[in-house]
Amino acid sequence: MKEYVIGVDLGGTGIKAGLVDAAGAVRLKRTVPTDTSRGADSILAAIKSAAGGLIASAKKGRLKISGIGVGTPGAVDPETGHIAGGAENLPGWKGAPLVPALAETFRLPVFASNDVTLNALGEARFGAGRGKKDVFCFALGTGIGGGAVIGGKVYRGAGDAAAEAGHMTVKFDGRRCNCGSRGCLESYASGTAVAREGKAACRKNSDSIILKAAGGRLEDVSAKHVFDAAKKNDAAAAAIVKKTGFYLGVGIANVINIFNPEVVIIGGGLSRAGKILIDEAIETVGMYGLEINLKNTGIVLSSLHSTAGMLGAAALCWQEIKGI
Amino acid sequence: MKEYVIGVDLGGTGIKAGLVDAAGAVRLKRTVPTDTSRGADSILAAIKSAAGGLIASAKKGRLKISGIGVGTPGAVDPETGHIAGGAENLPGWKGAPLVPALAETFRLPVFASNDVTLNALGEARFGAGRGKKDVFCFALGTGIGGGAVIGGKVYRGAGDAAAEAGHMTVKFDGRRCNCGSRGCLESYASGTAVAREGKAACRKNSDSIILKAAGGRLEDVSAKHVFDAAKKNDAAAAAIVKKTGFYLGVGIANVINIFNPEVVIIGGGLSRAGKILIDEAIETVGMYGLEINLKNTGIVLSSLHSTAGMLGAAALCWQEIKGI
Repeated sequence: MKEYVIGVDLGGTGIKAGLVDAAGAVRLKRTVPTDTSRGADSILAAIKSAAGGLIASAKKGRLKISGIGVGTPGAVDPETGHIAGGAENLPGWKGAPLVPALAETFRLPVFASNDVTLNALGEARFGAGRGKKDVFCFALGTGIGGGAVIGGKVYRGAGDAAAEAGHMTVKFDGRRCNCGSRGCLESYASGTAVAREGKAACRKNSDSIILKAAGGRLEDVSAKHVFDAAKKNDAAAAAIVKKTGFYLGVGIANVINIFNPEVVIIGGGLSRAGKILIDEAIETVGMYGLEINLKNTGIVLSSLHSTAGMLGAAALCWQEIKGI
Repeated sequence: MKEYVIGVDLGGTGIKAGLVDAAGAVRLKRTVPTDTSRGADSILAAIKSAAGGLIASAKKGRLKISGIGVGTPGAVDPETGHIAGGAENLPGWKGAPLVPALAETFRLPVFASNDVTLNALGEARFGAGRGKKDVFCFALGTGIGGGAVIGGKVYRGAGDAAAEAGHMTVKFDGRRCNCGSRGCLESYASGTAVAREGKAACRKNSDSIILKAAGGRLEDVSAKHVFDAAKKNDAAAAAIVKKTGFYLGVGIANVINIFNPEVVIIGGGLSRAGKILIDEAIETVGMYGLEINLKNTGIVLSSLHSTAGMLGAAALCWQEIKGI
């Protein structure tokens, strides 16, 4: 009987679950909305519905399911399997008994870790980092996440909070960050930062095609509007994207200088912003990275995109139960 | 017959070698000056003399020697065992066939890595990080080095150049660094940076006790003079040390946010600068570090001091030959 595991990727708006074999092939997939109406209870119920649906289908098809892996925003306490913190976009999620709750419902081994950490594992096992042992992954979205695979295994750090690349300081006397610190990469190179710069550009120029893309509503200007305008050669938008690429490059160079991984993988929504962003980032890495580190580290775009987290969650499960 | 290995720590001025057992006890020690008069040839000869002396003594005492571990400035190519670069303070050392040359002379298994990486392993096995699996070590001297132990093993990165903490950018539009980049931690918090600030203070105030400590010779002002003056409550010196502690704290916070190790160990000459530096660094870490990461990471001073490298080199050897 062929074995499968369930990989679950919990996001702010949706939950992706898949029935995944040891080679990373997805036999069946299920997506449910993330229900945050009753805090942790409704989120757990939604995860159970996603996983439970797949388990029911698998039983009908007489497939063996050996475990469940879950990627979640924030950190998972390595001892208790509860959410230890850091999941600010999911109110009430902190403290949720993620691992024990699923284990009790499904009577299966359950493993969980930070979603971007599992993105990195997914890419390392089945994606752009295939065959590499030391991989660092950036997830560029509203915020910036990071994940590391070292020696082929997820690197969780002392509190499952390793690779918080968004909160590395790139300018100690720089912008205030939501986290309370100053000069974090996230306050320069995230989607939120790009949108803020886009709004500032629109305030200066009410004819801006950034503003047009947002339907003329300043408050609706998003990173996507800025990137779209840059693709249409809008000078103000292109300048924002270029500056963002510079900041991102400083952050990547720091990771290369400190981690010296075999490959840095850039994923998340912003990674699809196009050539200007990535070209500028790579040029900056050349200036800020140490020659000896650059020589051995590649920089590539994610190849799994939005399935990296689900596949990484499955990979964690395979790693824990079979050592693969 | 009790087994020993030879641990060798190659420094800019001296080579420390020791006959070390599996528990980290040093049975015999030998120090020779680093001879750089004929580049790599004379350095290799000096290492052979240090190790060879111990091997000869061991043979007389009928002790078994199972291998040699060497810590060196710069990076060691993991494939060839040659010096891959980064050892700027040892002219001619780049390209030296360190591992094969020693293996041929002594007919023993030889392992080598970056000296600060091995400091971290030494502390993790036998020092301030004893019992910890994930350890990050700062070596604060003329420059700033870093070393990481992950899962109890040295983390070398793709080119043995991991943990280059001195060259993480803490201010992307900041000071020029020797490495060609900008705003590196090393250009703010190293001994060289402290001496430069000390000289600037003396230029402003020719009555400075920093200058007196340097015998009135501005060009001789060193970090030590600044730290000594700070201990005597000189206001200018204390301000420099405090600022240095702040910069160092930003760097430590970055490592904690990115690596989330169980413990960060501060070693090197500057770590003995006293309470002002470390207190200020720890206070800064509290501001720049993420709460969830700080909760799980301790910050302590080195306990092995100048023997960390030699013991770490021995530990590398034990790890490679016996898996311990």
